[in-house]
Amino acid sequence: MLESDKELLESVLKRRFFFVPSFDIYGGVSGFYDYGPPGCALQANIIDLWRKHFILEENMLEVDCSILTPHEVLKTSGHVDKFSDWMTKDFKTGEMFRVDHLIEQTLNNRIVAEESSTSVAPKDKNLKQLNHSIPLDGDIIRKYKEVLNKLDGYSGDELAKLMEVFEIVNPTTGGKLQSPMEFNLMFETSIGPSSQMKGFLRPETAQGQFLNFNKLLEFNNGKIPFASASIGKSFRNEISPRAGLLRVREFLMAEIEYYVDPQDKSHKKFKDVQNCKLSLLSRDIQERASAVPVRMTLGDAVNSKIIDNQTLAYFMARIYHFLISIGIDNSKLRFRQHMANEMAHYATDCWDAEILTSYGWIECVGCADRSAYDLTVHAKRTKEKLIVRQTLENPVNVSIWDIDFKSGNFYKKLRKQSALVKDHLTSLSQSSLKELSLKLELEGSIQLHVDDIENDIELTNDDIKIVNETKTIHVREYIPNVIEPSFGIGRIIYALIEHCFWRRQEDEARAVFSFPAKIAPSRVLVVPLSSNKELVPMTNLTTSLLKKCKISFKVDDSSVSIGRRYARNDELGTPFAITIDFESKKDETVTLRERDSKLQVRGSIESIVNAIDSIINDELSWKDATKNLTKFEIQNTEN
Amino acid sequence: MLESDKELLESVLKRRFFFVPSFDIYGGVSGFYDYGPPGCALQANIIDLWRKHFILEENMLEVDCSILTPHEVLKTSGHVDKFSDWMTKDFKTGEMFRVDHLIEQTLNNRIVAEESSTSVAPKDKNLKQLNHSIPLDGDIIRKYKEVLNKLDGYSGDELAKLMEVFEIVNPTTGGKLQSPMEFNLMFETSIGPSSQMKGFLRPETAQGQFLNFNKLLEFNNGKIPFASASIGKSFRNEISPRAGLLRVREFLMAEIEYYVDPQDKSHKKFKDVQNCKLSLLSRDIQERASAVPVRMTLGDAVNSKIIDNQTLAYFMARIYHFLISIGIDNSKLRFRQHMANEMAHYATDCWDAEILTSYGWIECVGCADRSAYDLTVHAKRTKEKLIVRQTLENPVNVSIWDIDFKSGNFYKKLRKQSALVKDHLTSLSQSSLKELSLKLELEGSIQLHVDDIENDIELTNDDIKIVNETKTIHVREYIPNVIEPSFGIGRIIYALIEHCFWRRQEDEARAVFSFPAKIAPSRVLVVPLSSNKELVPMTNLTTSLLKKCKISFKVDDSSVSIGRRYARNDELGTPFAITIDFESKKDETVTLRERDSKLQVRGSIESIVNAIDSIINDELSWKDATKNLTKFEIQNTEN
Repeated sequence: MLESDKELLESVLKRRFFFVPSFDIYGGVSGFYDYGPPGCALQANIIDLWRKHFILEENMLEVDCSILTPHEVLKTSGHVDKFSDWMTKDFKTGEMFRVDHLIEQTLNNRIVAEESSTSVAPKDKNLKQLNHSIPLDGDIIRKYKEVLNKLDGYSGDELAKLMEVFEIVNPTTGGKLQSPMEFNLMFETSIGPSSQMKGFLRPETAQGQFLNFNKLLEFNNGKIPFASASIGKSFRNEISPRAGLLRVREFLMAEIEYYVDPQDKSHKKFKDVQNCKLSLLSRDIQERASAVPVRMTLGDAVNSKIIDNQTLAYFMARIYHFLISIGIDNSKLRFRQHMANEMAHYATDCWDAEILTSYGWIECVGCADRSAYDLTVHAKRTKEKLIVRQTLENPVNVSIWDIDFKSGNFYKKLRKQSALVKDHLTSLSQSSLKELSLKLELEGSIQLHVDDIENDIELTNDDIKIVNETKTIHVREYIPNVIEPSFGIGRIIYALIEHCFWRRQEDEARAVFSFPAKIAPSRVLVVPLSSNKELVPMTNLTTSLLKKCKISFKVDDSSVSIGRRYARNDELGTPFAITIDFESKKDETVTLRERDSKLQVRGSIESIVNAIDSIINDELSWKDATKNLTKFEIQNTEN
Repeated sequence: MLESDKELLESVLKRRFFFVPSFDIYGGVSGFYDYGPPGCALQANIIDLWRKHFILEENMLEVDCSILTPHEVLKTSGHVDKFSDWMTKDFKTGEMFRVDHLIEQTLNNRIVAEESSTSVAPKDKNLKQLNHSIPLDGDIIRKYKEVLNKLDGYSGDELAKLMEVFEIVNPTTGGKLQSPMEFNLMFETSIGPSSQMKGFLRPETAQGQFLNFNKLLEFNNGKIPFASASIGKSFRNEISPRAGLLRVREFLMAEIEYYVDPQDKSHKKFKDVQNCKLSLLSRDIQERASAVPVRMTLGDAVNSKIIDNQTLAYFMARIYHFLISIGIDNSKLRFRQHMANEMAHYATDCWDAEILTSYGWIECVGCADRSAYDLTVHAKRTKEKLIVRQTLENPVNVSIWDIDFKSGNFYKKLRKQSALVKDHLTSLSQSSLKELSLKLELEGSIQLHVDDIENDIELTNDDIKIVNETKTIHVREYIPNVIEPSFGIGRIIYALIEHCFWRRQEDEARAVFSFPAKIAPSRVLVVPLSSNKELVPMTNLTTSLLKKCKISFKVDDSSVSIGRRYARNDELGTPFAITIDFESKKDETVTLRERDSKLQVRGSIESIVNAIDSIINDELSWKDATKNLTKFEIQNTEN
């Protein structure tokens, strides 16, 4: 995007109150934004469409869970320990930076400076101090690019090493920086009057859904697969928010948790999407330090194991169709697979839908296979079974390693500790039990390290027996796996705004947002040509008809010229304008103007509203919907 | 509500996953609830209707502002200092109580115990220890009732006095309690990595709207009156949450801020509502220790000054119509005026819509006149003008007291302090300036106490002049007043659930929720009589027609009896069931069942879906919508 276009875009977004920094009159706080009426309506329409596209279409179970979450839940989920970024502090000024972003910015600047210095002479001698002091040759640039590609996955030690090797300093002052420190991204507070219960603002809506798993499964009559979904605010205490709506501290998420049998991740509707072609930037491609995705059908991608399973691929297709339907530019959309070292602590495979904006490729939707991680850890911590029971059509005989606590000295020997040790042993996997059984047989005793017991516990053949038994299983019990499509609504809105923005060739100052009719903040502008009272009855007739058809509209009966009013309309992305003039009074006809083409047609109010209705509902195109209406010659009304 | 009804209600709400305590498998945290699919859909439908009834119907400007709010904003608004409850702590056990609730509970228990002891002998000797130790005569009961009536407005000292006089102790242990301590109800956190910026979770959505006042006014082309509105989560760290959804720590609010000329609080649509009759529990009535509201038209209430102004009354009517339209029982709805000592720190008049539930009368909507309080304090703090400019048709001459700083020694004398003193003087009211002018004239000097300056400042006639001038005013500038209808959505949902709940006479175990069709979690249950494959095409035809008409539905093709499926349906409050049987295959007709009456009619799929559509859209009653359909005799399918 051209710098001048971006300036116009930003000025329109502010002037038309799409969104503004929160607490603006107090100087603002970075990472917080308020949506004004058009932004708010855009958001509501996108959410509405999301609900139809995912929740209704796929019969998902929507839930609305608490934002404030007690410490214990997020300790179990791993967020207290692992949901953090690395930051560094300037020794002198105290300014703080997010380490990965700082390295990214520095290396990119050096590459750009080097590449442009080969054609033009460096303009600024001070560049030296601003992280550009290293002479770059081709090898180093390749090294930089490799680091940039893997930047999401480095550990603290690795980042410290990179800072040292690449001589990363404060980019504005050149000052020295401290070693990276871990900073947890959750906002902390305390619940209740005693200040003893620690809580956090949730960093994702997922945990609330997992905690309700049993109730959801029961609501679904015990059947699997099924999905829960939730739309709501989440919070991340970003170290240094930047890039407008793209990196904020409070944001609206829409998340789906699809529960599936770990032994069968096929999807019954996969055949409907297998021919859908997506741009895939797989792990392989990235490891070759390339950023050129391959276009491939989902059928091929699953067959060649690029995408792990049908369910993951099915949701990638659904995500793709959703984004395209709201107006995201297909050529600026790709799916990038997470590198092994980059995935969240819970994920086994993950693909991000990335959208190209003026800030680069931005992750807008994540689609992760979280495996059984969350349900497993919560079940373990709470001792609540979070499982699916599947009645087997044909009972199966299985060989099972089981522990007999009763026939030995177990309880007598361990007394108060017996409950803890029993819990420990029963939570072990079949292979661990087999191993212990062999050890008992060979060595006569085993040593166990049990949580919350200081010394190791020794057990002998006199205490317990670990035996192999053949059992007939009628009901299979398993912890389902979870496939999670997770949408950052604010990021999608911003990308969409950029993709829909353009300026009229005939008038460079006139910005237009070409939002699809079904998500535009307002569908119709009703424009009485003058404030003459004679036009009021027709205006009222028009608005009552629009209301009846549930089409949102605004009336602009201000005294400014019709051209100015159309221009305002374009800036708000309103797709249609109905103009009421003095002819309207005579023959009950009105004019319909289409935003992008400025084409106008004329017809009865009913026929015009019907045309609009069929376009909004995706039933007809503009051309088909208006083919029986009269083309209307524009008498220079646009100026 | 009978205890047995309440038990059934609670079991159905839990079993059908309307809502459950959050973090249930972790033991729960009081004051937090999760909505399951039916609760979530009910909430979404109510919000949708709210948006149509208020935002669309009245052309309000919807905004979506940040939840996390910096300390400075809420310090200015008064919440840091005044948004608190009084709590007390048991010396021995450390248990904490909210003082007003504890006094309320104790006095009510004593009254009940005394009143029942006149007819039956006291059963429990231990009552003595449990706050019932004082013998009650008529005078004391009257005193108790007077205190109970005023309980919302006592200061900390007054509450301490009441605790002493009434010998309030820990109700479970009889233990002694500490003096009341103030406890701020906002959840605190810190923003950014340095922990230096303090912030709170907003206790209301209002402040975000006020901070955007200038942008909203500009968006509305500078015209007043207009309203902004916001729907979102707010948070209050209640001392001891109780009563389910009625007192929670995290809740969904829908708030309107209507900006109006302080000199003209008439409303152009008041004539539409002046004959609307409401139950009003005015301040007068309450001061007479009565709880019997008067039924009165809004016209009369405004004329007799019971309600302060037309705009306040207009919104009370709109609130009333909204609540009735979603299904609140008219006979269980009243508007109670706040007592003078009870109003929030910002309000000049306030009426609560209270709804009767099994927990008593519950405030569900507040309708307050916040005057110019908020805009004034934020403008003063930020030095940003938050005003309306009204071009006067006829310029007026006004006499104005003005300060001349330039012709004296002002700047020379005060040096660095001159800015602060100037700010102080220019912020004074006209009457204060007039007073100072007189004093200067009579005494030759004035003393000023200026914020942030330690010693009083003395100014003489040599320093400044305060002169009376006649000016011609072309533009009137004023800070608008704010009328605020504020909805607690969770409380409304709970009250609605109670009002819509009943059990079938013929089967006591069968619960029914008679939600109006337009807000019911799901509109239609589609019930194929059997799982026979022959019924699938007609089922698909039915669902595709429902989809086309945008009517939400669920299919229940489980193998349980049709009666069981209808019963499930009743418990979810689904108003209609379409049953597909083997006749359907032959003649393409289906059966439509109405939830409350169990009446059934038969007709073509199209005619049935049209009937449903017209009922949902409030166009026809069940009777009118089905008059051309065939009555269907029930062959005992309900069992």
